[in-house]
Amino acid sequence: MEEYKVIEVKESIFEDNNADADRLRDEIKTKKTCLINLMSAPGSGKTTTLCRTIERLKDEMAIGVMEADIDSDVDAATVSRAGAKAIQVHTGGMCHMDADMTRQGLQEMGCDDLDLVFIENVGNLVCPAEFDTGAVKNAMILSVPEGDDKPLKYPLMFSVCDIVLINKCDALPAFEDFSKEKVVERIHKINPNASVIFISAKKGEGMDEWIDWLRGQVRLWQD
Amino acid sequence: MEEYKVIEVKESIFEDNNADADRLRDEIKTKKTCLINLMSAPGSGKTTTLCRTIERLKDEMAIGVMEADIDSDVDAATVSRAGAKAIQVHTGGMCHMDADMTRQGLQEMGCDDLDLVFIENVGNLVCPAEFDTGAVKNAMILSVPEGDDKPLKYPLMFSVCDIVLINKCDALPAFEDFSKEKVVERIHKINPNASVIFISAKKGEGMDEWIDWLRGQVRLWQD
Repeated sequence: MEEYKVIEVKESIFEDNNADADRLRDEIKTKKTCLINLMSAPGSGKTTTLCRTIERLKDEMAIGVMEADIDSDVDAATVSRAGAKAIQVHTGGMCHMDADMTRQGLQEMGCDDLDLVFIENVGNLVCPAEFDTGAVKNAMILSVPEGDDKPLKYPLMFSVCDIVLINKCDALPAFEDFSKEKVVERIHKINPNASVIFISAKKGEGMDEWIDWLRGQVRLWQD
Repeated sequence: MEEYKVIEVKESIFEDNNADADRLRDEIKTKKTCLINLMSAPGSGKTTTLCRTIERLKDEMAIGVMEADIDSDVDAATVSRAGAKAIQVHTGGMCHMDADMTRQGLQEMGCDDLDLVFIENVGNLVCPAEFDTGAVKNAMILSVPEGDDKPLKYPLMFSVCDIVLINKCDALPAFEDFSKEKVVERIHKINPNASVIFISAKKGEGMDEWIDWLRGQVRLWQD
């Protein structure tokens, strides 16, 4: 199955994105749709992580993915094949998603029947952190090859995330200067409440813990 | 030696950044300063590549580096130790450098005596591509772990670059799904004139070719 719409979203008409994000959270609360905003730099493994996540959860809940991209439909095709309802959102050059862009995507995709929807945000550690999308939780991926100093350089991104997945742990032997201890220490210095999980989306390591975290978020939101 | 200024740059007062970038190119032409704008995603290895480059070239020319960052002075300290004149430019949350921000950085650093200046742009494959900094040439780094599909997803970035360094080639064995042929094909489909060099800043592979390219650019600009 590879079926998805492609839409071009318009810039928000709302001056106050934060207030609009709160409205969107109210809207999805009534639909019992748990919305997770997944952010990372380009190439950290968002799409692969989502595909493995969808495969693990699709028999117990209905999942949707909103693929935000400047251009291209590569990712919507991929997650659709993995078994999620998918929509490709073209941001028209915009480097982030805001709450109204997210709303436009959800409306076009249709989320009344969905338990869990991911926004795969534009690959960017800067701008997406500045805009509340209306998601219930923010998640981010930092991959081992990017280096353990990234919390120092993109503090806002790490400060707005509820959970940080450290991906590509299978490549740790090739990046021996990456310190697991240091990266956790740096993340917690900025954001003491962030959960940190070491994963390899490719090999499966740590995925149980991530899947359990997601199950917990959906349960809490639908209660 | 670890000596560098830190400045906060202001948003450009010029409406037409492209015209201002042309003015800046004229200004640095009279000073014979060859300005190279280096862009990449976070963690692709910009700073390591610059350090190895500085070490190789510092005895034959005077080099400066403008480190653009949302926050933190990590990189300016590092390149200063490698032997370049350095300035840390805080963009105040801005996700890119424009021509006037670059001018402010050059003025504060002082570039009259410099042959080659690098802008290490904010780690971001989206926004920096949209702003001409006034540089003589645009260079970018894509690292192997990010994947060979990035030209499809960030076409503007690849289209504005004169040279693409594919870094972390020493990690190719850990990323066996990365195709060197495909990435070159995808880059050249967008930008047939881009030079593509496979390097490992860490192990030295391909650095000769990059150093030669830089020597050629400085020579051309100073002629």
